[in-house]
Amino acid sequence: MLKLKALFEPKSVAVVGASTREGSVGSDTLKNLIKSGYKGKIYPVNPKAKILSGLKCYQSISQIKTKIDLVLIIVPAAIVAQVLEEAGRLGVPAAIIISAGFKDVGRQDLEIEIKKIAQKYNIAVLGPNCLGLINPSKKLNLSFAPLMPKAGGLAFLTQSGALGTAIIDIARDLNIGFSVFASVGNKAVIDEADLISYWKNDKKTKVFGIYAEQLNRPEILGAVIDNLCVGANPKPVVILKSGRTSIGASASLSHTGAMAGNDAVYDAFFSRHGVIRANSVNEFFSYLQIFNNNKHLPAKRVAIITNAGGPGILAVDALAYNGLNVASLSLESKQKLKKVLPAAGSSHNPVDLLGDAGPERYRAALEIISQDAKVDSMLIVVSPQSMTRVDELTHWLVNWQKKCLKPLAVCLMGASLMEDSIVKLRQVGVAVYTYPEEAVKALAALSKFNDSKHLFNDKKVFDLPKINRLSRHEADKIFIQAKAESFTALAEFQVLPILKAYGIPTPKFILVDNNEDAILATKYFKGRLAIKVASPDILHKSDVGGVMLNVEPGDIPSARKSLLRAVSKNNPKARLFGVLIMPMFNPGLAELIVGAVKDNGLGHALMLGWGGIYTEIIKDSTFILPPFNKTVIREMFTSLKVNTLLDGARGAKAADKKAVVDILLRLYRLLQDFPQIKEIDLNPVVVYNKGVMVLDAKITLDNN
Amino acid sequence: MLKLKALFEPKSVAVVGASTREGSVGSDTLKNLIKSGYKGKIYPVNPKAKILSGLKCYQSISQIKTKIDLVLIIVPAAIVAQVLEEAGRLGVPAAIIISAGFKDVGRQDLEIEIKKIAQKYNIAVLGPNCLGLINPSKKLNLSFAPLMPKAGGLAFLTQSGALGTAIIDIARDLNIGFSVFASVGNKAVIDEADLISYWKNDKKTKVFGIYAEQLNRPEILGAVIDNLCVGANPKPVVILKSGRTSIGASASLSHTGAMAGNDAVYDAFFSRHGVIRANSVNEFFSYLQIFNNNKHLPAKRVAIITNAGGPGILAVDALAYNGLNVASLSLESKQKLKKVLPAAGSSHNPVDLLGDAGPERYRAALEIISQDAKVDSMLIVVSPQSMTRVDELTHWLVNWQKKCLKPLAVCLMGASLMEDSIVKLRQVGVAVYTYPEEAVKALAALSKFNDSKHLFNDKKVFDLPKINRLSRHEADKIFIQAKAESFTALAEFQVLPILKAYGIPTPKFILVDNNEDAILATKYFKGRLAIKVASPDILHKSDVGGVMLNVEPGDIPSARKSLLRAVSKNNPKARLFGVLIMPMFNPGLAELIVGAVKDNGLGHALMLGWGGIYTEIIKDSTFILPPFNKTVIREMFTSLKVNTLLDGARGAKAADKKAVVDILLRLYRLLQDFPQIKEIDLNPVVVYNKGVMVLDAKITLDNN
Repeated sequence: MLKLKALFEPKSVAVVGASTREGSVGSDTLKNLIKSGYKGKIYPVNPKAKILSGLKCYQSISQIKTKIDLVLIIVPAAIVAQVLEEAGRLGVPAAIIISAGFKDVGRQDLEIEIKKIAQKYNIAVLGPNCLGLINPSKKLNLSFAPLMPKAGGLAFLTQSGALGTAIIDIARDLNIGFSVFASVGNKAVIDEADLISYWKNDKKTKVFGIYAEQLNRPEILGAVIDNLCVGANPKPVVILKSGRTSIGASASLSHTGAMAGNDAVYDAFFSRHGVIRANSVNEFFSYLQIFNNNKHLPAKRVAIITNAGGPGILAVDALAYNGLNVASLSLESKQKLKKVLPAAGSSHNPVDLLGDAGPERYRAALEIISQDAKVDSMLIVVSPQSMTRVDELTHWLVNWQKKCLKPLAVCLMGASLMEDSIVKLRQVGVAVYTYPEEAVKALAALSKFNDSKHLFNDKKVFDLPKINRLSRHEADKIFIQAKAESFTALAEFQVLPILKAYGIPTPKFILVDNNEDAILATKYFKGRLAIKVASPDILHKSDVGGVMLNVEPGDIPSARKSLLRAVSKNNPKARLFGVLIMPMFNPGLAELIVGAVKDNGLGHALMLGWGGIYTEIIKDSTFILPPFNKTVIREMFTSLKVNTLLDGARGAKAADKKAVVDILLRLYRLLQDFPQIKEIDLNPVVVYNKGVMVLDAKITLDNN
Repeated sequence: MLKLKALFEPKSVAVVGASTREGSVGSDTLKNLIKSGYKGKIYPVNPKAKILSGLKCYQSISQIKTKIDLVLIIVPAAIVAQVLEEAGRLGVPAAIIISAGFKDVGRQDLEIEIKKIAQKYNIAVLGPNCLGLINPSKKLNLSFAPLMPKAGGLAFLTQSGALGTAIIDIARDLNIGFSVFASVGNKAVIDEADLISYWKNDKKTKVFGIYAEQLNRPEILGAVIDNLCVGANPKPVVILKSGRTSIGASASLSHTGAMAGNDAVYDAFFSRHGVIRANSVNEFFSYLQIFNNNKHLPAKRVAIITNAGGPGILAVDALAYNGLNVASLSLESKQKLKKVLPAAGSSHNPVDLLGDAGPERYRAALEIISQDAKVDSMLIVVSPQSMTRVDELTHWLVNWQKKCLKPLAVCLMGASLMEDSIVKLRQVGVAVYTYPEEAVKALAALSKFNDSKHLFNDKKVFDLPKINRLSRHEADKIFIQAKAESFTALAEFQVLPILKAYGIPTPKFILVDNNEDAILATKYFKGRLAIKVASPDILHKSDVGGVMLNVEPGDIPSARKSLLRAVSKNNPKARLFGVLIMPMFNPGLAELIVGAVKDNGLGHALMLGWGGIYTEIIKDSTFILPPFNKTVIREMFTSLKVNTLLDGARGAKAADKKAVVDILLRLYRLLQDFPQIKEIDLNPVVVYNKGVMVLDAKITLDNN
């Protein structure tokens, strides 16, 4: 376990690479540190200078001769290791490497060196390639950000330094303060899981905001995030994750791989752990504002109080779109409202106070509605009419909100006319938005966070099925052979035996590679058959004429010949291992696809979806990540369209979902045993009201 | 045709209901008019005052004795008609009724009176229940809005006055000026189509922005909007339409009705006419900004130039999400970029200038990229680093953008650090955004508008099939009977004969209402049969056991009895007209649903979708509105998932789409002949590779 205290509360800091050159990182960083009001010792280190910004400058850290808690490294990449090694020998517990030029430019070697040194001396290293770190409550700015954020409730971690500076500037405008600002850079040593772990007990921190391009160590990160919700003051995590389109862009051989595009695996991870995902920088701030300013109470049934009908309807639209409810007010509230509203006003939700409403009418309505037990949260919408007297209304709201026990969002629709009020309300911790749709999205995030607790509260994790050694050995042989022959993929005839070994239901099948065996096979089967080409080079068999259905057993020899002829013609280079023969199966209740994909950061994720010929047409699929429990499994099914068929549409019996879950768990066991599996498709998986059957499958392998 | 000139350029205005009461509409409106700098005559009218705001006040408009171009009416609803009648008799050509208390509070009667007077005297009436009208270039403020907008390129029409005032305030902040601001209120006389028609030739107007809750007269409005795109300077229409959820909320008896929820009919109307729909107020402004500041050129291939990697990736994500392309730069551009960028920078799109980029590097990159023929539009992203020198960069951009011939959006990610630059760039007509996702959405709207031209450029409108009198009479009889018996819906046995009369393929069927006929029927059919209950009270036959499939002809009598028994038990009150007997059909290539729905504002829209048992599960449907042409029909098919099946998936023959189109056109003819049809479902419609067959159908009727 890394000891991060020295990183965030160092008693002394050496700035290695401090500089005098105006506008350089070495100069800005040193100046920031001095300017920030830091109470500890500052030691500039630069062999070419005697004094920097009025401080004595050292040739090297070894010359400092007193205890150093943290080295801030801004030297060229090539000599960073040398500085870190020196720090390690001196017993420095923490370092921030601002310097770029590591993994970011393809120099993995330099980064590995850093990691090794950090490990050797147990140094808590932030970076490299980062903007640095700011701890506002300690008046500590260890970054070259042009602005010092104010202290507050946001713990912000960013994989992009440049975005970080924009975030500081915009947050200041929104009156969002920081408990910590950390630019994690390449995350060579310290990553988000470490930082959340350290900050989770910080009393000032109300919400974690993270910008990430890739996340790693899913089990640890997931557990750390789950842990934030233990206790009376849960701390939500809001993540802005970029690179949605990167997986989708690269062509994928499997259906599962194709469906994992658009970040489906990240979405699965986030919903598994109650993380609120922001889909834009704007949403990111909307969510940070609401979490920073509200208790984490239910918010689902929203009352809208407005002086403008149009924006009221827009808010109602947004509620429906975001899965929130228009609260139905109690009869008592409605009667009370009727008394305080003009005849043309609406005492139904959205409560329309009319355009000539002044502060008195807002006040009367809000005091009634905030007491209504059928209302979870309130959205106050104000458009700037002559009669609104926004200043007065604001003055009253500033005081009233202190007593208000329910989540609250205020939408002040305007610019110059609203400016002062926006500032005043934000100062007292009210979430203020310009547009009703943004305010509603924020309330939806609050509600979603509250609802997500049931997912990680379900602690009964399924055990993965045990596989005996012999079975595992069966599978092993096939993978070893594939590696020996440099196969990048395994076709059906190779995958079915693996699945069988792992207890996944597969048809009785035989592989026939000559005419004599084909003749023998005519006696082996009864009923109609499927005959398919067996080739490690052909994953899409139908495309090359490699599948014949409904073949009579007596026709096996001739079917085999004509099938191989067709395939050879369409794909002359493919190595043909013969044909696979198996019985035809009746269609069952539905055809599913069961698959898995390996994400570079999050590891293996399982997929379930509508399979067969509809796989590509309907694109109905969902991903899940471990730990698997009943709640996760149930929500996996209900999120799918095909679930209606599984539940028994139009009087049909329900499908055997237990058997589907069994396949998923066995598949996950297989992935744990063989991490070299990059993508796997079982498709179609025919589901009956009792049992399932995997009729086809393929695997693609990691190249290394 | 109404003469609107007097409305927008009156030489004299009478303000009826002008008042001295501070903060009242009558007082604010008069003051606004005086303050705005209006050059014409102003006549306050109020029987209780002699002088108002320094102007002579009249007892009534009759006493004014000189020509009045416009009366602005602010009196209580009950006496508005009287004032309008007086104005009509005096020959006043235009009126604005600000007063509320008409349709808005259920007083349709008062509104009809207004309409009649307007018609009698041919008065151009805006309102009632509106904020009024502003013509900034004429310095004319005929509203009680608290702010006067500046003159500019936005023609803004709003159905919500309160939203209007917010829009004026926010637009000022964004430096968007108005050519006209019109609050249309209840639209008793003048609606959006009239206003667009009048303003379409205005040289200052660059874009129409509309907030609407309901639109009417779809043919006229559609034609007027199409007309805006004729000529070299097309004027886009951006609409913020609220009330998305109103249809969906009311329970619907038909599938088509259910699918028309979430405003699908409006979406169809908008895409038919190249209208850009904004889904939030924020989007509305994003789009207005980009259209107000850019030529309508292609924008699809976007180059991103950034000093921050993270926001660059966010922008790429947003491009993919919004259907835009990451432009691939020409080899020449890349080589030139390499020369001006540091080694760690990226000369690929997104072009990363790195965090230490100053104005020089932006300049060098932009001059290269703006000349690249493979780039349509540019997104400049700036995060506030110490080295950015945003002021200098802005100064250069202000001049450079004049020469830039390609659409341009600038994303300045920050608040206080960017404030001055945002103002300066907006002043010279650059679209500036805080967040990359917003900037990308705006470029996408530009691109979409450019792409939408092909839809209304296709002027070859399909003729609707002709139906002979006899056939129409057949259908007529059924509707007349339904009305006589107060049916609110027509069941299959009533609808199939109507469809048959209109030339829509239906199965050979007989209605059997006694045992003798059932016995006779055993001779009439060969092959297996479907037997279904015939009752005007049962629209969902399967739910009450009212359908038996695969019945042998010999079993008709017994099947009939057991079916009727089951139905009577499940629905004892239903009137049973017997059973319908028809042959079973083979499944074909796909089962479709063909339907129509009547929207209160936009009239009948046709629907096509995936039908049969998948209707509710997959919810794959699309709506179209007339005029129908090849382009509309083609895009209708390609927007559907089921189209893959229709095109012949996995080697199957293609479906007979012509036959599907023929049904749609015949159905539309039926709707024109019988406007009392509220919803109609033909489902399933089995499609073969030659021909189609409608196997079931129902109609719901308008109550009046």
